[in-house]
Amino acid sequence: MTLTTDYGYGAGFVGALHAVAFGIAPSLSLIDLDHTVPPQDVRLGALRLERFMRIAPPGVHVGIVDPGVGGSRRAIAIEAGRHGFVGPDNGLLLWAAEATGPGLRAVVLDQEAFWLADRSRTFDGRDVFVPVAAHLARGALLADVGTEVDLATLVRLARPVARVRADGVAEVEVLQVDGFGNVQTSGDAGTVAGLGLHPGDRVAVGEGNGRRVAAIYGATFADVTVGETVMLIDSDGCLALSVNCGRADQLFGGDRVPALTISRQ
Amino acid sequence: MTLTTDYGYGAGFVGALHAVAFGIAPSLSLIDLDHTVPPQDVRLGALRLERFMRIAPPGVHVGIVDPGVGGSRRAIAIEAGRHGFVGPDNGLLLWAAEATGPGLRAVVLDQEAFWLADRSRTFDGRDVFVPVAAHLARGALLADVGTEVDLATLVRLARPVARVRADGVAEVEVLQVDGFGNVQTSGDAGTVAGLGLHPGDRVAVGEGNGRRVAAIYGATFADVTVGETVMLIDSDGCLALSVNCGRADQLFGGDRVPALTISRQ
Amino acid sequence: MTLTTDYGYGAGFVGALHAVAFGIAPSLSLIDLDHTVPPQDVRLGALRLERFMRIAPPGVHVGIVDPGVGGSRRAIAIEAGRHGFVGPDNGLLLWAAEATGPGLRAVVLDQEAFWLADRSRTFDGRDVFVPVAAHLARGALLADVGTEVDLATLVRLARPVARVRADGVAEVEVLQVDGFGNVQTSGDAGTVAGLGLHPGDRVAVGEGNGRRVAAIYGATFADVTVGETVMLIDSDGCLALSVNCGRADQLFGGDRVPALTISRQ
Repeated sequence: MTLTTDYGYGAGFVGALHAVAFGIAPSLSLIDLDHTVPPQDVRLGALRLERFMRIAPPGVHVGIVDPGVGGSRRAIAIEAGRHGFVGPDNGLLLWAAEATGPGLRAVVLDQEAFWLADRSRTFDGRDVFVPVAAHLARGALLADVGTEVDLATLVRLARPVARVRADGVAEVEVLQVDGFGNVQTSGDAGTVAGLGLHPGDRVAVGEGNGRRVAAIYGATFADVTVGETVMLIDSDGCLALSVNCGRADQLFGGDRVPALTISRQ
Repeated sequence: MTLTTDYGYGAGFVGALHAVAFGIAPSLSLIDLDHTVPPQDVRLGALRLERFMRIAPPGVHVGIVDPGVGGSRRAIAIEAGRHGFVGPDNGLLLWAAEATGPGLRAVVLDQEAFWLADRSRTFDGRDVFVPVAAHLARGALLADVGTEVDLATLVRLARPVARVRADGVAEVEVLQVDGFGNVQTSGDAGTVAGLGLHPGDRVAVGEGNGRRVAAIYGATFADVTVGETVMLIDSDGCLALSVNCGRADQLFGGDRVPALTISRQ
Repeated sequence: MTLTTDYGYGAGFVGALHAVAFGIAPSLSLIDLDHTVPPQDVRLGALRLERFMRIAPPGVHVGIVDPGVGGSRRAIAIEAGRHGFVGPDNGLLLWAAEATGPGLRAVVLDQEAFWLADRSRTFDGRDVFVPVAAHLARGALLADVGTEVDLATLVRLARPVARVRADGVAEVEVLQVDGFGNVQTSGDAGTVAGLGLHPGDRVAVGEGNGRRVAAIYGATFADVTVGETVMLIDSDGCLALSVNCGRADQLFGGDRVPALTISRQ
């Protein structure tokens, strides 16, 4: 069983999930994939969960980025081959499930016998999602924990956008900044092809207010000297801006930049 | 075996606990309940550990929030039904043990054969508590690891205070702020009853210097519109202040507020 | 299998390592020793990994602090008695291996059959080191995963320096600050002997720009009153500066100080 959440490591939320999981399934193998999705950033959580599917072992995956907890959003489970997914119906799980599919089936969780007694109104991760997932990991069937629902009714998020304009400038979104300061964008190998970039090419990277930085298109950090800026396809397959042994997130005065333009020089 | 500490994730302290635990008991099931108790906040650590007992599987629980390490405070273990507790005698463990009781027995740890060789003077978590707990998890008896002590001699902390004054104003302490900015107080369902609150009621929440914010008493975040403030009973059973999809800890100019008043409007 | 990295807990890097490890070796026992080595601080990572060897159970240890990823630095595995080490050849692993030796053997990793398919150019932790380590944990031999290499060719780092000058002043480096604000230096019991310090002695601790603080040399925090400054040998065997129930890292105006002088008063 794996966990991907926006709980962070404060306040013991993650520990509560572990306690409940092992209480139900003592011999569970439990993997913390990620608890640092930015709070309530459902789309980034969905992207990370989808990417994990390339390497995650078969089993049940719990996803919890859930600003709508306690409201009317549905709780669901999806089965996709040897993988299962449990979480809110807000788009968090669907891309990941489709990445492991085909042959998806989904249920709305409505069998309270599989939930924690005394369910709170604000912590479905502890009270609903993890208990259901632990029961699934122990052998419960999808049909045991909920009522089948048409896949077409599940919430589906819009994909991040990356496009190359007719004037040869790419417009990409910034998806995340990692702990090393690497700036990951929505661009990918298709963007590189659209720009006609080859290793060693110079690119200009701009943000909305006109500031631009120069970078070299390369394959790895070491393709530029220490302190220089490189644009590369990162380990998620995304076009990313990096500084060799430095922090690319400091290039625009330390500002958090939501979108970038890229053009070949 | 579970761990609840104020070590945080820097400097490898938690990893040292894991290494020692698995060195002694290789097939141990180890749950990190919480390593983010604010440094040396024994009372909040005790509250969190007590709350975990509602969901924690039976076993040995190590608690380490230990500003008195190396001094004269005693190291203890408590047995309470199918649960055991190991840590400093500073009040950290007692509430949790009583929550799983009755029939408590306690020992002062004095059998150095169960400790790490070369005990340091500043890291009893690694050198004493976890080794003893791992031996208990493997089958050692309470009487093996220490000398029985009268329960009445154990340090007992004062509970957080929440009261409703004769003028209908509740006075509560702020216990913690979580990663989403929710402000948890010492109030609970009794406070709500004392204030005569019903869902949908308006409340005024004040801090010491006269600033007040308006909130709706509700059951979950979604009972107010996005950006509005709600007061609710949270998943720990505590009265808490939240902003739907926002941060309640920013309501008073971002100041850390130690206590709040609450009154029905 | 253990992990020591500078990945931090953001962006899901650690989770990716876990997913890959359990995908290859489902019944693995996996210990997160440390993921908070400061980014790209190879020497501090090497010191922490070496210290863990005093308590780590036998098995395979992965170390990843790897500013040279994607460049020409080699990927290696070292065998030392019942311990194995996998990571970059930049000095990160060697001290730890020697601490568990003698009888070291090393290979350069060149057997791609043990790597993840579709190796990226920037994430050897996920794509090379952990897959190789998981295969070693499952029973692969050192000779299976690489080609033997002369130990003398492995990169060796310079040790941190601590010396007592002829004028009786010790010069030490600051190695790290932990979550409690304790300032760990490169000094050790030899430095204490060189200074002729005995418990209760007063010392002056200075930083480069002339600021000095007074401290008592003691054995534990409680050897000074709350709020006072103590210099002690910490649980790693290093001379450290601490404030009882306070933060020693705030003593010099909150500045990060790279080196200190210590003299007996």
